Amino acid sequence: MDRYVRRLPDLVSFQPGKGAKADLFRGDRLFVGLNCFEPGQSQPAHVHAGADKFYYVVSGRARFAVGDQSFEAEAGAVVWAPADVAHGVEQALERTVMLVGIAPPPR
Amino acid sequence: MDRYVRRLPDLVSFQPGKGAKADLFRGDRLFVGLNCFEPGQSQPAHVHAGADKFYYVVSGRARFAVGDQSFEAEAGAVVWAPADVAHGVEQALERTVMLVGIAPPPR
Repeated sequence: MDRYVRRLPDLVSFQPGKGAKADLFRGDRLFVGLNCFEPGQSQPAHVHAGADKFYYVVSGRARFAVGDQSFEAEAGAVVWAPADVAHGVEQALERTVMLVGIAPPPR
Repeated sequence: MDRYVRRLPDLVSFQPGKGAKADLFRGDRLFVGLNCFEPGQSQPAHVHAGADKFYYVVSGRARFAVGDQSFEAEAGAVVWAPADVAHGVEQALERTVMLVGIAPPPR
């Protein structure tokens, strides 16, 4: 595997029941990965204490919850989940691939 | 502007001479932005001391340099530039849009 580059088409996968994840890169300060959802799948609201996070919707469309807000985001949207703010994917409305970054990386 | 979501089509721009940038989100731990290049434009090699970085190629194709490696990456590729490793965009080979994350954020 190349040291400095990953190609999403090689890493996207889906599974029944709940979203599938893939790790792309992990440094001391930043984690980058994928979250892949079939339509109807969700990610329960959760908090990363002291860690900022974003989702970039690569393809598809999903309903997100961040803090007290709930909104749809589709391909081309960046969703921001600041440190200590509860966030999750209420429901994937299509087959949806998201690039995710978390800083600092989860343990 | 929505507090937790940005849509790339609203933020992509290009300029003559050198790549155009846009800030999307900035937290204490993570910065997310855009780098947009016309064909032939470049970003000189540089280092982020103590900060991990990635580029996600949203569209287009470019030649990157990271450490001692030089490689092309196209839409769907994630390029990793670990803390303290020199990196840059040698040349955009098409009109290219990149999502960029840097942790911790540059000052």
